[in-house]
Amino acid sequence: MRKVFQAELHQVGEELIQIATLVQQALKSSKVAFLDADVQVAEEVISNDARIDFLQNDLDERAIDILALQSPVASDLRMIVGALRMSASLERMGDLARHLAQLARMRFPEPVLPEALNDHFAAMFDLDLKLLERVISVLEDRDMTVADEIYALKSELNQKHQQVFDILADPNWDSSVPTAVDVTLASRYLERIGDHSVSVARKVAYLVTGDWAPISETHPTGHGHIGSDTGE
Amino acid sequence: MRKVFQAELHQVGEELIQIATLVQQALKSSKVAFLDADVQVAEEVISNDARIDFLQNDLDERAIDILALQSPVASDLRMIVGALRMSASLERMGDLARHLAQLARMRFPEPVLPEALNDHFAAMFDLDLKLLERVISVLEDRDMTVADEIYALKSELNQKHQQVFDILADPNWDSSVPTAVDVTLASRYLERIGDHSVSVARKVAYLVTGDWAPISETHPTGHGHIGSDTGE
Repeated sequence: MRKVFQAELHQVGEELIQIATLVQQALKSSKVAFLDADVQVAEEVISNDARIDFLQNDLDERAIDILALQSPVASDLRMIVGALRMSASLERMGDLARHLAQLARMRFPEPVLPEALNDHFAAMFDLDLKLLERVISVLEDRDMTVADEIYALKSELNQKHQQVFDILADPNWDSSVPTAVDVTLASRYLERIGDHSVSVARKVAYLVTGDWAPISETHPTGHGHIGSDTGE
Repeated sequence: MRKVFQAELHQVGEELIQIATLVQQALKSSKVAFLDADVQVAEEVISNDARIDFLQNDLDERAIDILALQSPVASDLRMIVGALRMSASLERMGDLARHLAQLARMRFPEPVLPEALNDHFAAMFDLDLKLLERVISVLEDRDMTVADEIYALKSELNQKHQQVFDILADPNWDSSVPTAVDVTLASRYLERIGDHSVSVARKVAYLVTGDWAPISETHPTGHGHIGSDTGE
């Protein structure tokens, strides 16, 4: 019985990694769709999101079955509850990647961004991709030594997000208001994707250490609308 | 034992209502802070959000204790897992109300909105407040006959959110780009609050009927960046 149970827990862990990997692919593709105004790739991201949703439901049903049939306690219980929460964050990251692709599709054949912002947003996508890579590695081996790195990446992402508002507020900004709207939303989506990465990493940290501390909220952010939502 | 268990389940339900009521207060106050540029009320919303976070943690710990000690199955198990998810949505709604208050604080003593948009945003706040009122009533009595009403309110909110983008795209729009940024974010926050209301209502519906159908996703939205996130 115990052996079956451990296999089931392992399976839940594998599914989380599988979903995270799909989110990673979605984010990579949404970067291409968004920065290169590639509507075909955008369509792929949009239609593939259903697969992430399906897997999340599947994982959640499996987790609930384990709760019902095995009545886990202590760390096993925390792992299952943690998995339910992580799957919700990952699913949401998939939605946000889809939103970025939808922006690309909406503006096609025009790009979403004025060219001057391309590098800035490419860097934001890359920070999200690096965060997600660390999250996948943490899910794989539960080695929380990357916690500081995750925090540093998120901090850099917050800065880039803040800079977007500075750029938009610059009197020399000469793009249209609708472009500013798109830029604002895209930056917000990218920042939220990073928040969810941190959130998933914190949940793994909690399982490993019983404490949220490794990726703590001791770094106050949050002046105005760019307040970090890391605390979920 | 069974009696204790039922009392504990009831307590979780009461806590959900308590959190939802605090979110309702936060949203009412953030409406005042936001529309009347009342920085004192904004500060209240911002500092009171910690209380919502605390109660969410408390509820989650209680729910996990119930899972560990009572090993609920079937509908009781679904109720506990549902409560964990609903508490996450409610906590997030509190964050979003806080973000609105933070916008008000950041722009104080100026208002966030150009005066011409006041009525539009007041209407959006009111739709969110109506949605939340329905959600609280559904949490209280699990009477899903308000499902259609919830859907209609959310649909109206989506329209108002879309209209914000139309207004911003209008060549006659004569406010600054930073104002457009604030307006975009505020509208997005208000739309997300509505999404979470629908999400909570759907979870109650699921508990009542075993089916997500009463508040379904059969109404496609989602062209471009205003895609409804109702599917969580």
